[in-house]
Amino acid sequence: MKQPKRKIYLHLKTLQEARALWAERTFSGRTATEKVPTPSALHRVTAEPLVALRSVPHYHGAAMDGIAVSARDTFGAGDSSPMRLNLGENAFPVDTGDPMPANADAVIMIEYIEPVAAGQVEIRAPAFPWQHVRKVGEDIVAGELLLPQQHRLRAADLGALLAAGVLQAPVYARPRVWIQPTGSELVAADDAAEIAPGKIIEFNGIVLSGLVRECGGEPLLQKGVADDFQSLKQMLQRAVNSPADVILVNAGSSAGSEDYTQAAIAELGEVLVHGVTMMPGKPTVLGWIDQKPVVGIPGYPVSAILAFEQFVRPLLFTLQGLTCPADPEVEVVLGRKTPSRLGLEEFVRVIVGRVQGQLIAMPLQRGAGVITSLTRADGILQIPQEQEGMELGERVRIRLLRSPEQLDQTLIMIGSHDNTIDVLANELKRRDSRLHLSSSNVGSLGGLMAIRRGQTHVAGSHLLDTATGEYNFSYIEKHLRGTAVRVVQLGRRSQGLLLRSGNPKKIQGIADLIRPDVVFINRQAGSGTRILLDYHLQLLQMDAQTIQGYDQEEYTHMAVAVNVLSGRADAGMAIYASARALGLDFMPVAEERYDLIIPESGWNDPKVQLVLEIMVSSTFRRMVEKLGGYDVRESGQVMGCWDGAAWQGRGTA
Amino acid sequence: MKQPKRKIYLHLKTLQEARALWAERTFSGRTATEKVPTPSALHRVTAEPLVALRSVPHYHGAAMDGIAVSARDTFGAGDSSPMRLNLGENAFPVDTGDPMPANADAVIMIEYIEPVAAGQVEIRAPAFPWQHVRKVGEDIVAGELLLPQQHRLRAADLGALLAAGVLQAPVYARPRVWIQPTGSELVAADDAAEIAPGKIIEFNGIVLSGLVRECGGEPLLQKGVADDFQSLKQMLQRAVNSPADVILVNAGSSAGSEDYTQAAIAELGEVLVHGVTMMPGKPTVLGWIDQKPVVGIPGYPVSAILAFEQFVRPLLFTLQGLTCPADPEVEVVLGRKTPSRLGLEEFVRVIVGRVQGQLIAMPLQRGAGVITSLTRADGILQIPQEQEGMELGERVRIRLLRSPEQLDQTLIMIGSHDNTIDVLANELKRRDSRLHLSSSNVGSLGGLMAIRRGQTHVAGSHLLDTATGEYNFSYIEKHLRGTAVRVVQLGRRSQGLLLRSGNPKKIQGIADLIRPDVVFINRQAGSGTRILLDYHLQLLQMDAQTIQGYDQEEYTHMAVAVNVLSGRADAGMAIYASARALGLDFMPVAEERYDLIIPESGWNDPKVQLVLEIMVSSTFRRMVEKLGGYDVRESGQVMGCWDGAAWQGRGTA
Repeated sequence: MKQPKRKIYLHLKTLQEARALWAERTFSGRTATEKVPTPSALHRVTAEPLVALRSVPHYHGAAMDGIAVSARDTFGAGDSSPMRLNLGENAFPVDTGDPMPANADAVIMIEYIEPVAAGQVEIRAPAFPWQHVRKVGEDIVAGELLLPQQHRLRAADLGALLAAGVLQAPVYARPRVWIQPTGSELVAADDAAEIAPGKIIEFNGIVLSGLVRECGGEPLLQKGVADDFQSLKQMLQRAVNSPADVILVNAGSSAGSEDYTQAAIAELGEVLVHGVTMMPGKPTVLGWIDQKPVVGIPGYPVSAILAFEQFVRPLLFTLQGLTCPADPEVEVVLGRKTPSRLGLEEFVRVIVGRVQGQLIAMPLQRGAGVITSLTRADGILQIPQEQEGMELGERVRIRLLRSPEQLDQTLIMIGSHDNTIDVLANELKRRDSRLHLSSSNVGSLGGLMAIRRGQTHVAGSHLLDTATGEYNFSYIEKHLRGTAVRVVQLGRRSQGLLLRSGNPKKIQGIADLIRPDVVFINRQAGSGTRILLDYHLQLLQMDAQTIQGYDQEEYTHMAVAVNVLSGRADAGMAIYASARALGLDFMPVAEERYDLIIPESGWNDPKVQLVLEIMVSSTFRRMVEKLGGYDVRESGQVMGCWDGAAWQGRGTA
Repeated sequence: MKQPKRKIYLHLKTLQEARALWAERTFSGRTATEKVPTPSALHRVTAEPLVALRSVPHYHGAAMDGIAVSARDTFGAGDSSPMRLNLGENAFPVDTGDPMPANADAVIMIEYIEPVAAGQVEIRAPAFPWQHVRKVGEDIVAGELLLPQQHRLRAADLGALLAAGVLQAPVYARPRVWIQPTGSELVAADDAAEIAPGKIIEFNGIVLSGLVRECGGEPLLQKGVADDFQSLKQMLQRAVNSPADVILVNAGSSAGSEDYTQAAIAELGEVLVHGVTMMPGKPTVLGWIDQKPVVGIPGYPVSAILAFEQFVRPLLFTLQGLTCPADPEVEVVLGRKTPSRLGLEEFVRVIVGRVQGQLIAMPLQRGAGVITSLTRADGILQIPQEQEGMELGERVRIRLLRSPEQLDQTLIMIGSHDNTIDVLANELKRRDSRLHLSSSNVGSLGGLMAIRRGQTHVAGSHLLDTATGEYNFSYIEKHLRGTAVRVVQLGRRSQGLLLRSGNPKKIQGIADLIRPDVVFINRQAGSGTRILLDYHLQLLQMDAQTIQGYDQEEYTHMAVAVNVLSGRADAGMAIYASARALGLDFMPVAEERYDLIIPESGWNDPKVQLVLEIMVSSTFRRMVEKLGGYDVRESGQVMGCWDGAAWQGRGTA
């Protein structure tokens, strides 16, 4: 039997302690200064003050087309006393930009010159000294400060430097970052068409490389090494002897991986921090070997990114003389109760949007492995370690991952999950790349509650009234008293049982779900699909508790489908599109209407109007039909207008 | 005589018209879609929706170290009924990340396992099905939308794509931009150590290249060509036949340059716009040859950058399917009357800072050639063409060139100019790269007025009271009644006459300024230096109007110095440091005190406190002494505290 070590954190540091220790140790570090040709210095950081080496213009030049003269020679010229000047003698033709001839100190515009004879022109007004002359130093004077040190060079800065004769820019070298993936389970992305169970594509190294680039650093991504003590130690030795300025070791997923990193750093140098009370990101290691900072980055992708942000990003900025820019923060209202473990500072990824003038945040999935919780996130809520979580409706400050301006371009959709929402999201962005659909799958009833609280632009819902066979209407009457909404059909869709391809268990229908050899996977309470299932169980007078797996819940159709595909369950209830996406068998149970519930107060929001436009477009219908199992003939049709007390016009189920 | 053509704009378009025409013509253009390996796709823009090709995890894996079991086998285990499992039979050692053995559906943590005999372990609690198992699709389900199209890929996105098996990303090709500098006056940056009068370093092409890169495009910077009709036409033909997606022709400074561009485009294709009522940027040309957009970019650097921003930037975003992001806007109070020409939409570069809670903007130099007006700018005020300008104190919206957060890190300094302010600016940024000093040179008196209006953090001032020989105090009493300030000495400095090296005109002192062969260059009214000069003229009972050039004004010491250096003037009054910077002769006239006047209300601002700290630092003193002509022994000393009505403690002159 393998003997995995238990992970041991001798002295967990709080995030604040760890950051302070790290900042204190790293604050004076800078990479070497190098001179680069100014044209290649875009986005580099100045290591010295940059002073103009020559004035701009560096010569007195004509600012107009015309003739250059000595103003003194023209005094006395007037309408009644025209004056003649001799070309090449006291009048010199010049074009804009030409240097002024010696002794000339003014330009008379071509418009005011009359050629009168060969080599002679006439003027009818005197010239003022220095009129229409761009004088030396008018724009930049040699010796003046063009740009301070520790300034990141923009395109226009390069122009100012070159104009002023600064052809080489002294800048901090890009910090070189050794990125070491570890773990024998890794497969490189370039030969990863098929990967075996137990293997995973090495992507953390690619992500870290991208993050390093975004900080102005140069990633030195290494081939993976085994995550055992000896290999790690040898690798660290190589890294320390390399030109790298910073060393990152990305832990493998195997047990003890972070401990090996810690032990190897301790043996070769010094461990400052072993474990931080943050989540994700706890197994972070901060160390120091031969005056080089070494960071043990945890293995889970979200942990890796958060650890990078907290410890590596500030370091890379410091090395270039820059203060790490802070993300913008905003106050939001939390749309869901968010418990958190005492003693750990939790980083909850949230979607954020402005609904009825108020910023609303909804937490996404929490797992450290769920990288899409970061790619989908609009912001991050940090729950302090001394707090057990945040309440629904609580006002909290969050860190934004988008610009504050973008929040107004985010459409929030809370409620039931449907695969067509992916199509909506894509169409929205295709039509205007600034727009962005952020969705939270909390089930149909959860969507109605979000509308009641004024926390969503749109809610997807397919709640069956088992008494009438109608969808959504009676639920709206019950839960949205006082809140006006419109009900717009997104489409009709086929719900049914998902079964493994070929139906190996020979399941014939819902009645078979109680068979002892059948394991079911359920949807969460409050979801329309759950209500639909319960309705059919009731029709068949079946006891839900006799179904194995009835209490195992998933939040999306696709999650149900993958449970069936992977053999965790034999059957689940979901829409046809999810069966089709994963190649499962499908046994129809019902066709149902799926509506978008839209608060009257947000009906005129341009984002909502665009969604309505998309729903009736042929592109949308074509794409949805491709998913399978949808009837989109009535998509976009208003099914009912609820004024908060009564229906003002209502269609049929 | 050369026959320069006058510039003819047949039909000037307003900026709005030109932008609309251009947007309409270009809105459907996209570059080709190309597949790039996902690891290389950072910051590229997706050309298709990206859907997960495999689930993550793609196998059921252990989420803990321990033994994998079939939960069913463990039912009945308890404290009073320990259960033995046989390794390799119904218990399989696993480490985190290992695939689950066939039929196993739960992991029991190593902590809860007791090895009891060879090949046997004991447990004292049953396992729940799927406990400590990372199930297939827990993070990502195959078929789900990972990222919509027209999304710019971030580092974390690459991770999500790779994890889900998307190894190639379909992205829009980077738009290739042909950048053509024109004009025979251009010298390439790499052989520009010395440049002759009439020649200028080619830097617009470098700036445009940088701007293209910042838009995600690929610049194809060409060697310069002559700006005559035939050369331009041949070049355009080459450009159109090249793989470039967009063609930029940067006009030379010679007359008719823009017209040649226009004519060449018209002959080969179509001119949509010739001239836009914007300033700078009027000579912009928008055209179309063989389905390729061609833009004639004006020659002056500020014009070039503004024309790029208005017309090329949106185009490059469009070609990648993106909507051009808008700069953030803020409302500011204008700190200076800003006239503008009717009929032209003017782009005024401004510095912006928050003073006493209010955002203040001060215009910088207006010339289209002054590229430092852009490198120094914090924002841009667009004055509509139907307005003749903006009033002092008017509330106006401006476009920010920094993030709104950075405005709080900008220290505004309005008042007299001194070379040590460059040192302060550099030190401030060196100590914290987020900090930023924006200064406006309006003279000492202008600084006091800005304080009175609550529009500056600090004002530099050296106003001599000719009656008492004191500096600043009596002016504060007169102008700052009701406004409490502290007066802090920045240093003492030597003022005097600047003369060309070797004093060719044998000027012996101020008395010689009235000599008919001597041309003077003056400072603006309200500046301390002007007051100092007038005082000395008065002492000598000289009539200022007899001095040639007395009415020619400059705003800074360095500008005076360069006037003398270039021969425009024979003498000027300025500080020693400016003479030294340009190698001029210096004839001392007086030593004066230069103070920073700091409103009491802003005294505790951390930026102000840092300035005070810097002033007494040895680095600062060393750097200032290097400038020459300064006595910094009392730098940082508080000379007086004015409570708005009386002095509460006051030092001596």
